[in-house]
Amino acid sequence: MQLSDRITGINAGGSDGWGIYIKARDMERAGQKVIHLTIGEHDVRTDRTILDAMHAATLAGHTGYSFGSGSPGLRERIARRVSERTGVTTTPDNVLVVPGGQAGLFATHMAACDPGDRALFIDPYYATYPGTIRSVGARPVPVLARAERMFQPDAADIAAAAGDGAASLLINSPNNPTGVAYSQETMEGIARTCQDHDLWLISDEVYDTQLWHGRHITPRALPGMAERTLVIGSLSKSHAMTGSRIGWVVGPEEALEHMGHLATNTTYGVAGFVQEAASFALDQGEGFETTIAAPFRRRRDLVLRLLDGQNVVRPIPPDGTMYVMLDIRATGLSGEAFAEALLDKHHVAVMPGESFGKAAAGHLRVALTVDDAQLEEAMRLLLALAAERAG
Amino acid sequence: MQLSDRITGINAGGSDGWGIYIKARDMERAGQKVIHLTIGEHDVRTDRTILDAMHAATLAGHTGYSFGSGSPGLRERIARRVSERTGVTTTPDNVLVVPGGQAGLFATHMAACDPGDRALFIDPYYATYPGTIRSVGARPVPVLARAERMFQPDAADIAAAAGDGAASLLINSPNNPTGVAYSQETMEGIARTCQDHDLWLISDEVYDTQLWHGRHITPRALPGMAERTLVIGSLSKSHAMTGSRIGWVVGPEEALEHMGHLATNTTYGVAGFVQEAASFALDQGEGFETTIAAPFRRRRDLVLRLLDGQNVVRPIPPDGTMYVMLDIRATGLSGEAFAEALLDKHHVAVMPGESFGKAAAGHLRVALTVDDAQLEEAMRLLLALAAERAG
Ligand SMILES: Cc1ncc(COP(=O)(O)O)c(C=O)c1O
Ligand SMILES: Cc1ncc(COP(=O)(O)O)c(C=O)c1O
Repeated sequence: MQLSDRITGINAGGSDGWGIYIKARDMERAGQKVIHLTIGEHDVRTDRTILDAMHAATLAGHTGYSFGSGSPGLRERIARRVSERTGVTTTPDNVLVVPGGQAGLFATHMAACDPGDRALFIDPYYATYPGTIRSVGARPVPVLARAERMFQPDAADIAAAAGDGAASLLINSPNNPTGVAYSQETMEGIARTCQDHDLWLISDEVYDTQLWHGRHITPRALPGMAERTLVIGSLSKSHAMTGSRIGWVVGPEEALEHMGHLATNTTYGVAGFVQEAASFALDQGEGFETTIAAPFRRRRDLVLRLLDGQNVVRPIPPDGTMYVMLDIRATGLSGEAFAEALLDKHHVAVMPGESFGKAAAGHLRVALTVDDAQLEEAMRLLLALAAERAG
Repeated sequence: MQLSDRITGINAGGSDGWGIYIKARDMERAGQKVIHLTIGEHDVRTDRTILDAMHAATLAGHTGYSFGSGSPGLRERIARRVSERTGVTTTPDNVLVVPGGQAGLFATHMAACDPGDRALFIDPYYATYPGTIRSVGARPVPVLARAERMFQPDAADIAAAAGDGAASLLINSPNNPTGVAYSQETMEGIARTCQDHDLWLISDEVYDTQLWHGRHITPRALPGMAERTLVIGSLSKSHAMTGSRIGWVVGPEEALEHMGHLATNTTYGVAGFVQEAASFALDQGEGFETTIAAPFRRRRDLVLRLLDGQNVVRPIPPDGTMYVMLDIRATGLSGEAFAEALLDKHHVAVMPGESFGKAAAGHLRVALTVDDAQLEEAMRLLLALAAERAG
């Protein structure tokens, strides 16, 4: 039987870049000890108080159908948070509750793109981006954010890729995989380009609570941008709730109304008890979020300290997220070859930059998601290998 | 800003048929008592044992990312259930876990249809069907199942609608809104037509545990059909877990593999703790499902008894589901006019047949989702109104 071209095309891009991860898992299954610096997931579990709030919500009767767009209470809670943190007036009508940031990526591209439309995204990129764009039947167009510019995208490159008639641009700051947060200047260039080329700006801000200096900049707050920006938020990273599958989209009312209809037809909303747990989690305030982010901030500092006093492995200055990106081009190896050697020889798994597109070739992404002692050990082994190869 | 044609077209069909429901809710908000026979949702909540199993799963650590396609354990559990109940060998590779039957409807149409393809569905239909088809960019084509045939669809009508090049046919047995289960003959006609016209058959079987006589017939078990049938299952109706958003798609391995990629990009899977709760629920076996279905069986019998001895309101023989469909054409009123009058005069809310398409005009759908005493009172009021109007 013939499947749709759209669905068979989703993974048409070939390798999904998880080769090293899978090899590491196979080694573990075979009984070997591997230090995993691969996955964007906390080494702590969802807080007990949140789980208890969820259980209480089930017992209080939140076990029936909810609304496609999200419960009024949670939409209100999210609107308040977004208003307070960004200064952009945001009402519940600007909010859609979705089952995770990934669902937000899908819904926003459904809203912005018709089949065949060109949808821009920045390379290096989070693994699902091109597949998500292909899932909605649009054509993914990468725009390289170059290592020479510390992975800040260049407005001129975006403009060139947009050309005539592209539908949308997807950005992510703080950025996975680079750990970079876009500067005010970068954001203003992006905003200007979106206006010039009439692009929807889809802004993936799931790492907005993991920022190590300054304040998070959302492009939705820039002049003229609220009407063309769709922001994706998630409790996955901010509240260590990756497994609960809950997040949001914020944007113009009309877009959100239509995305509400889409939600009715794609998932019929999010479990009410998960929404109650999310409300409880958001009510814990910024202090809680700082606690969840703290280990990554500490380990980021640790990695930078360990890199001091050598010149072979150079960090991309990490502004935020749970990752640090390392430039290992001085070793003469590709990211893939280095990651392969590191796994084979030292049983340390990191993601090659090539997993995230073209722009991060010759780099490694180190996830800060193991305890400090293991991270330190892994970094020493990594540095030893780099020194040996550069030797 | 220009939204995609696809997303603005989702609700292009105009009224979603929920006018009476919304009016009834407004009356309740204004302090009036209304008996609600509208919603397809149990009057019991999800069983405490299932909720406790879910909480235990969260405490046991099922709070992190799961797999897009579902956890191996739950896929195995579903495969076993489907194999046992249908006799069709089903492995975990034939199973995708989705966040509810609705997500299954979306994913299967994404797999079967490219943008612009014609997708057939049977009218009368569950409210989301045409919107779901429009969401994937396909064109919904209703095929009328006529009251004269007791809402059993006619293979010749399907063949005529399929013509050349339709992509899929969506059926639902036991059926919402009619309460009818398709006969062996109907199913065989459908199967033959799908083979003749090379259609995917999407079989929505979310009411498979609410069948009042005989055995559930799945078209996937018919000769030559396993390779072209995508079955949608859900724990919403069978286990009173509407709010947990969990169900499955079963079908050919290749289709399911691609739907797994789609799941990665649409939702990144279903919360692990919800999957654990679903495994627990399925482990309770058929006895539990019979208990959940029992009130609907009992109330269906009650409704039939109350209809005895008059001829104005005629039931469509209810084979299954949590609904009974009533033919009120002898009153001379449309379903809408009758439902409106019943709500205004007697504060009883039922769904007009017109909410579900063209084929059920002059009918009412009565949901059996209130306690027996209220149902009895509502039916007496309905019969009184019908007698009065038939005069
Ligand atoms: C940049 C980015 N966006 C979105 C996601 C998806 O997050 P969620 O768990 O909310 O779907 C991730 C997860 O790693 C991510 O790194
Ligand atoms: C025929 C039919 N299919 C699918 C669904 C959706 O069920 P779920 O809650 O599993 O998404 C319903 C819900 O009423 C239904 O009646």
